[in-house]
Amino acid sequence: MPIRPVLWRDGRLDILDQRLLPLRERYLSCRTVDQVVRAIQTLAVRGAPLLGVTGAYALALEKKDPAAAARKLISSRPTAVNLRWAVERTLKSRDFLAEARRIHAEDASMCEAIARHGAPLLRGKRVMTICNTGALATGGIGTAFGILLRARAEVYALETRPLGQGARLTMWEAEKCGLRATLVADGACAAALREKKIQAAIAGADRIARNGDSANKIGTLSLAVNCRALGIPFYIAAPGSTIDLDARDGSAIPIEERDPAELSSRFPAWNPAFDVTPARYIAGIITERGILKPGDVKLGIS
Amino acid sequence: MPIRPVLWRDGRLDILDQRLLPLRERYLSCRTVDQVVRAIQTLAVRGAPLLGVTGAYALALEKKDPAAAARKLISSRPTAVNLRWAVERTLKSRDFLAEARRIHAEDASMCEAIARHGAPLLRGKRVMTICNTGALATGGIGTAFGILLRARAEVYALETRPLGQGARLTMWEAEKCGLRATLVADGACAAALREKKIQAAIAGADRIARNGDSANKIGTLSLAVNCRALGIPFYIAAPGSTIDLDARDGSAIPIEERDPAELSSRFPAWNPAFDVTPARYIAGIITERGILKPGDVKLGIS
Repeated sequence: MPIRPVLWRDGRLDILDQRLLPLRERYLSCRTVDQVVRAIQTLAVRGAPLLGVTGAYALALEKKDPAAAARKLISSRPTAVNLRWAVERTLKSRDFLAEARRIHAEDASMCEAIARHGAPLLRGKRVMTICNTGALATGGIGTAFGILLRARAEVYALETRPLGQGARLTMWEAEKCGLRATLVADGACAAALREKKIQAAIAGADRIARNGDSANKIGTLSLAVNCRALGIPFYIAAPGSTIDLDARDGSAIPIEERDPAELSSRFPAWNPAFDVTPARYIAGIITERGILKPGDVKLGIS
Repeated sequence: MPIRPVLWRDGRLDILDQRLLPLRERYLSCRTVDQVVRAIQTLAVRGAPLLGVTGAYALALEKKDPAAAARKLISSRPTAVNLRWAVERTLKSRDFLAEARRIHAEDASMCEAIARHGAPLLRGKRVMTICNTGALATGGIGTAFGILLRARAEVYALETRPLGQGARLTMWEAEKCGLRATLVADGACAAALREKKIQAAIAGADRIARNGDSANKIGTLSLAVNCRALGIPFYIAAPGSTIDLDARDGSAIPIEERDPAELSSRFPAWNPAFDVTPARYIAGIITERGILKPGDVKLGIS
C-alpha cells in the first residue's frame, strides 16, 4: 500500500503523525487551519514539497478569512519556500480544494520527473543521504529519495538529529520499499563516506537561492564539505518551486532556529533547523525539468 | 567538590556510572576484574586515560591470575592504547595497588601539564570540542577539556551520538566548572563553526600513530574536515601514552565497531566507535611534554 502522508476526506485533512513513526501509524484529523499550523510547527508533517501540499489543503478548511489563514500557514515554517508558493497559488484560485488536489497531483508527477532525470546518475550505487525526502516529504515518491528508489541505490541514511528524520522516516520508507539501507550517526558521516566507499551523496532542499546556494536540513553542509574532501559528487534534488529567485544567495535565506529543548532539556543549546550549502559544493541540482549546474539556477526552470 | 570518576576504597573499585549522568550520580561497586571489564564494555567508565587508570586499579582486585586478568582488561576496549599501556605497566610492578595509585597521580599531573601547554592557544576563545575529555575521561582535569578549562574558553560541545558523551558529560562538567558552554548537534558542526565564528577546535585521542594520524570518537574526522574547509585550526590533546609507535599510520589502528542497537533497535545500522583523522588535518598534538607537529610524533615524547 502506498504511503499517504496527507489525506483529504469528508471535509477534513488527515495528517499522518510523522513524530510517531516508525512505531505507530496514526493520523491527526484536522478540521481547522490552526490545527494544521500546529501540525506543521510540531513537525507532525514536514518536508518542503509536502508542506506545500499540506498548506494548500489547509486553505480549503478555511471559510471566513483565507488571506489571514494563508499568512498564518506561510509563517509556520519560514524557511520552506514551497509552502509560501503553494499557499499563495491556492489563495489566488477559485476552488481551493480543486487547486490543492492539482498541486498534490502535480507534486507526484514532479517527483517522477525528478527521479527520471536523477536515477541514471545513481543507478545501483552506494549513496549517502540526509533527513527524509521520500513519500513522507512530498506528494509522491519523493525528491532525493525518489531518485534513490528508482535507481535501486544502496542507501546510507544519516540519522539527522535532533529529530531523527533519517533514522525514523527514511529507514522506515526504505524498509517499506524493499530498498537496502544502513543507518549511520551524523558524526559517522566522514567515516562512512570513506570506509563504505560511498560513490555519491544526495539531499533535498528547502530553499535554493539564485546562485545555487541551497538551504536544507542541518547536517547537509557538513555532508557536502566531507564529500568535497573525498572527491565524492554531492547532488541536490528539489522541485523548481524550491528555487527562490528573490534570494540572491544563501545569506538571504532565513534560517529557522528551533527550541533548544529538542537537543537538551537541561543544558544551553543552539538548534538551527537548516544550514546553507554553498553552490560550489554542489555537483548538480536535479529538478523536474532536468539537471541544473548551480550557475544555471538564476535562469529559473520554467 | 572535584569529580571522582573512579575511587578505590575498602578493597574495591567504585566506578561512577557515566551512563546515568547527568541525571544521577551513582557508583558501581566492583570487587572483581570481570565486573570492571563489564563496566568498561558497557561504557559505565570510558575515556582513554581514565581507562588506563581503571585497568590498573582493576588488576589490584585480582589475586589468582593477574596475567589472564590483564588480557581480559586489555581486550575490553581494543582501540584504547592507554588501557594496554597501564595494565602492562601495573602487571610488571610488585604492588599493583601502589602502581595504580602512581598511574592515577601521574595522570592528574599529566593533565595539568597538557593544560599548561595548550591553554595559551585557546585563551578566551570560542572553541568546538567533541565527546568528553575532562575529569570523567582522565585521572585529573582532562586533556582537551582541561585545556578549555584553564583557558576559560567558550565551549561549543558536539552532542556525540550515539551515546551523547558531549551532550551528557561535557555539558555536565562545564556546568560543574562554571565554564560557558553551548550544545550543538553533530550535524550542526559545520553551521556552528561558521555562524558562531568558532576560532579553534580541539579533541582528545584514543590512539595516535607514528605519522600523527589520530583515532578518536566517531565524528572527530568530520569536525577536522570542516575546520580545514573554513581555515580553523584543529588540535589534538592527549598524553604521550596515547602514541603508539608500533602503528605506522592510521590504517594500523583497529577501529571498534559497536552494537548497531545503540543507534536503532529496529533498522540495520553501522556503528563505529572511532574514526581516524589524518595527520594533515591536525595543527598540533598537545601533550604533557609540549606541542608536537604531527610529523614529530615518530620521535616519541620521552
